[in-house]
Amino acid sequence: MTAIVGLMTKTTGEYLRDALDGPWKDMRNQCREYLASDTFTTDPALDIKAARARALEQMQALVDTGYPDHGFRRENGGTGDAGAAVAGFEMLAQADLSLTVKAGVQWGLFGGAIENLGTEHHHEKYIRPLMKLDLLGCYAMTESGHGSDVQHLETTATYDVDTQEFIINSPTPSSRKDYIGGAAQDATVAAVFAQLITEGESHGVHCFVVPIRDENGGDLPGVTTSDCGIKGGLPGVDNGRIVFDNVRIPRENLLNRYADVAPDGTYRSEIENDSRRFFTTLGTLVRGRVSVGGGAASAARLALTIATRYALKRRQFRPAQGEPETVLLDYRMHQRRLLPLIAKSYAYAFAQNDLVRKMHLIQTGQNKDPQGQRALEKRAAGLKAAQTWHATRAIQECREACGGAGYLAENRLTTLKADTDVFTTFEGDNVVLTQLVAKELLTAYSDEVRDYDALDWVKFAATMARDVVRERSGVRQLIQTLFDSSNETVEEGDLSKRAVQLQLLADREDYLVRTAAQRLRNGTKELGTPFKAFNNAQEHILSAGSAHIDRLVLESFIEGLDLVHDDEARAIAELLCDLFVFTTLEQHRDWFIMHRFLSVERAKAVRRGVNELVEKLRPHARTLVDAFGIPDAMLRAEMLNDASVYERE
Amino acid sequence: MTAIVGLMTKTTGEYLRDALDGPWKDMRNQCREYLASDTFTTDPALDIKAARARALEQMQALVDTGYPDHGFRRENGGTGDAGAAVAGFEMLAQADLSLTVKAGVQWGLFGGAIENLGTEHHHEKYIRPLMKLDLLGCYAMTESGHGSDVQHLETTATYDVDTQEFIINSPTPSSRKDYIGGAAQDATVAAVFAQLITEGESHGVHCFVVPIRDENGGDLPGVTTSDCGIKGGLPGVDNGRIVFDNVRIPRENLLNRYADVAPDGTYRSEIENDSRRFFTTLGTLVRGRVSVGGGAASAARLALTIATRYALKRRQFRPAQGEPETVLLDYRMHQRRLLPLIAKSYAYAFAQNDLVRKMHLIQTGQNKDPQGQRALEKRAAGLKAAQTWHATRAIQECREACGGAGYLAENRLTTLKADTDVFTTFEGDNVVLTQLVAKELLTAYSDEVRDYDALDWVKFAATMARDVVRERSGVRQLIQTLFDSSNETVEEGDLSKRAVQLQLLADREDYLVRTAAQRLRNGTKELGTPFKAFNNAQEHILSAGSAHIDRLVLESFIEGLDLVHDDEARAIAELLCDLFVFTTLEQHRDWFIMHRFLSVERAKAVRRGVNELVEKLRPHARTLVDAFGIPDAMLRAEMLNDASVYERE
Repeated sequence: MTAIVGLMTKTTGEYLRDALDGPWKDMRNQCREYLASDTFTTDPALDIKAARARALEQMQALVDTGYPDHGFRRENGGTGDAGAAVAGFEMLAQADLSLTVKAGVQWGLFGGAIENLGTEHHHEKYIRPLMKLDLLGCYAMTESGHGSDVQHLETTATYDVDTQEFIINSPTPSSRKDYIGGAAQDATVAAVFAQLITEGESHGVHCFVVPIRDENGGDLPGVTTSDCGIKGGLPGVDNGRIVFDNVRIPRENLLNRYADVAPDGTYRSEIENDSRRFFTTLGTLVRGRVSVGGGAASAARLALTIATRYALKRRQFRPAQGEPETVLLDYRMHQRRLLPLIAKSYAYAFAQNDLVRKMHLIQTGQNKDPQGQRALEKRAAGLKAAQTWHATRAIQECREACGGAGYLAENRLTTLKADTDVFTTFEGDNVVLTQLVAKELLTAYSDEVRDYDALDWVKFAATMARDVVRERSGVRQLIQTLFDSSNETVEEGDLSKRAVQLQLLADREDYLVRTAAQRLRNGTKELGTPFKAFNNAQEHILSAGSAHIDRLVLESFIEGLDLVHDDEARAIAELLCDLFVFTTLEQHRDWFIMHRFLSVERAKAVRRGVNELVEKLRPHARTLVDAFGIPDAMLRAEMLNDASVYERE
Repeated sequence: MTAIVGLMTKTTGEYLRDALDGPWKDMRNQCREYLASDTFTTDPALDIKAARARALEQMQALVDTGYPDHGFRRENGGTGDAGAAVAGFEMLAQADLSLTVKAGVQWGLFGGAIENLGTEHHHEKYIRPLMKLDLLGCYAMTESGHGSDVQHLETTATYDVDTQEFIINSPTPSSRKDYIGGAAQDATVAAVFAQLITEGESHGVHCFVVPIRDENGGDLPGVTTSDCGIKGGLPGVDNGRIVFDNVRIPRENLLNRYADVAPDGTYRSEIENDSRRFFTTLGTLVRGRVSVGGGAASAARLALTIATRYALKRRQFRPAQGEPETVLLDYRMHQRRLLPLIAKSYAYAFAQNDLVRKMHLIQTGQNKDPQGQRALEKRAAGLKAAQTWHATRAIQECREACGGAGYLAENRLTTLKADTDVFTTFEGDNVVLTQLVAKELLTAYSDEVRDYDALDWVKFAATMARDVVRERSGVRQLIQTLFDSSNETVEEGDLSKRAVQLQLLADREDYLVRTAAQRLRNGTKELGTPFKAFNNAQEHILSAGSAHIDRLVLESFIEGLDLVHDDEARAIAELLCDLFVFTTLEQHRDWFIMHRFLSVERAKAVRRGVNELVEKLRPHARTLVDAFGIPDAMLRAEMLNDASVYERE
């Protein structure tokens, strides 16, 4: 069978799929096989008790596939294939999102904290058991009072030199740990983030391993857990709350990779600045953000596959008496609803593959550039925000585009929407993350500004040189290369040229970053305080962050085109890239006109361009979604096989 | 107590609330009292079986409040207060949306069909029992194969002269009745829409009363019902499917207000044209659309109240060391996320009150203008689409703006989102409805074009005079009146003048309608078929429909300002009106610039204007949402009372 498959010619869709699957194609294919089984389906009919039980069973089944191994280094019993861990998470998101998130909490967040923040004795003690689910953990960072501002968590870990223990305590109502996956029921241990205090001095947020439940599932003394109850989705994830009343843990339970407390209470760290140490700590956990963005985009691809296949079968209204009813996707509006979202999904898939590759190289020690980690964090933050917003909007559009059928749980779109909805919030609120990207741009990665105090960073940003970011990013070089091969300049070039497209998005980014810095500079003088200057320009600053992400995504898309090794497939991918650019330009058309980057005439051409592109892509619609590589057995949308919806007399 | 209340001075919020409550203020106040009781709360923890049982119990409790009475005419045992029926539906949407929809199906759709399409003997037999819930019905219009194109339903009702019966049949898989509220479980009778055939001739879609279940809940012979199962929301509504296998019903079960079949099989109708008769039939059921749009907007007001009150208490990040953390609503982006949606909610509340008043005057026979009904249908279609889309977007934004807390069911936002999600689909898909509005504009209400054949109406639209709609609408007169009082012209007038604002929205509408007609005219020649001409311009046509709705809404808002009887409240309402206009202009800024209605300089002023307006409105945020008039007891969002989320040491 394999031999015969090997001899068959690849379809256009398969060429596209190869390009989209990227470097972790094998992992994806492996997942496609086992995720198509009944074990990994969602069942929306389960109540939360049954859904939680099922998610736990599915976790166990995942262990048997070797899924968790990729997340951990070889010396700890894993395969050390960081990229495969993320690719697996993305694939899981097309099967059951409760399972995806539950797996992410156990192996990604909890396991990741142990591996990345702990040292050898933690690895030896915890990693094998947690990989095999002999130890269930949770990741207790967020508190009721502080979600985005995690640097100011209130839980304390006070060192008691007499007993050589840390005392974990929740001193205020708002210091309650909240929304913690696993805390309501399954986790027996928590990785708790708390302010470390020793010798009467606070050293900022550190992570501690704290047992919370006994073997029978009862709270340990001093620990009070409770249940967050029903959520908008993710019924299989047992989110809960934890309050600590002076719970004592051994000194060794501090995850001490970046800082330690000696038995006598002396604090030591290779990173002196509290704030810098905290962000270094967080930085090692970047894989969570990379995974969440990729998982959301993957769920969006599933929704778009379902909605597109429905739109290719479903008919409504005759164009004229006696003619057959029109297929939904033949309507221009339906094309405009779905095809630009598909184009965006291609763009993000290439950008995500790029991001995962960059992360993999850093996390496996192949890239040792000291700036690499910082750039990775910015890119991960930006793409997490962009992809999760895309998923929310795209899945919603798919639901609406499938009408009443789209509202039935058996067709999956409402479940996909509900389950992914919180992805715009967890692993960093999207507005905060986009702002983080902009801050990095405005301050050119300076270490001084990594804490979140508006006053300091506004002052700093306002003094920065203007073009430092673009100089570094290498975008000028790519644009130049593209121009060299096309003998044109941006002023006269037509909008279908990649160089012109990239120049336009880069110009927008540049302009917004530069003028944001200007506003911060002038604003502090005019408005009195740096916070007012920042706040008055907040929308502008966020636009700069988004513009940066748009530009990065286009770069990835352009580079991704070279991975399509077939002329016909390549031609389709080029159209998709155009459509991505044109819809991005259309979205900001007012800005481009107002800032004289597009004339009114060229701006009108943008809308015409979108219409022409969706028309050209329409015949390839099925190929476009087939290339997302979701096996029929994983679609599981009843309406795609329901004669009542399509059959005509 | 009443006397004391009477002596107290009204607050600014109460003045605004009076204006928003509009003509059916008393009904709203009455609802506020009984809906605040525990009987009418949502419980997201119920499985669908329990949720359905609860909805039915709540229905019974509603009967005792007299709620259903308003939907029916005095001679049938009701109060004949059509406007109160809609106002009640809107209020219900803030309590429990499953109940709202279930009530809408029973009294609005099923009851409405009996009252409006039936004649005396139907009224006598059915209305009292259905009002009291001694008879539970459903409204079996939509089929698996035809949802938007209901004129081409496939269910047949063939008259058998020998037995004087109609034979109700589902001849194809796609003729299965689908998504029918009540059909899965509770309804014993269905109002079935089917093609009437007598003497071998089809006369189009008519409505028939068909018993479907016996006293024990079993399907009657020839009837096969099934369950649509779990949906994205509305767990208390038992949506189901019905297949008819030659089910016989007495001749008298035809709802025969507009057409009848004599015992000998002769068909008679005062309306000769099948298509016109069908649209007349549908037209009498316009209250469903009016209710759904109003209900969605009402749910959005609840979500905005919850999110705004949260944003006024929740703090995150310190502006500078030692200062208190910033309240969420003090962030510019948070202001920009919520306040424009609040402004839009005001706009739609005034527009909805206008619509309900117009509907009430027609349905109570006080307005007998023959054009009135047609204009009402267009306005209802447009406002249904606009308000339900607004609700979907606004509630989603509220969820995201409340972060993790927003994702917990106990804070209601996810439930509101899930329950209202299908409002953009049922009672007419929003895209189809917006298109319907545009068609009416393009063809100036001509009867000839009321069937849905693209060929016919494109031809017709292309021959229409250009400005006929605006001439009729009276908008010129309002603009003139506004200009007269301001001594300005649109060219020089500043954007804060109502006349200038209205002129801009009217210009956009005019231009889009005119150029759409042009494109249809030229397109048929250029593209070969009327369908291609229509399809190529579909996006343009839809924009014309939306632009019309925007303009109508602004007119209602401007007129609504006069209902605010207090200087301070009036000043706030004026700011909201400005914000509504400025965000609408901002949304279409590219269009206004490209078509030279706004210069680049004025366009830049639009964004500045939005920022200035949200800043000016920020101090009044609590007043703005208090004016929505939702009692604290009806908010039921746990986070608003959770010290852990707000308290600071």
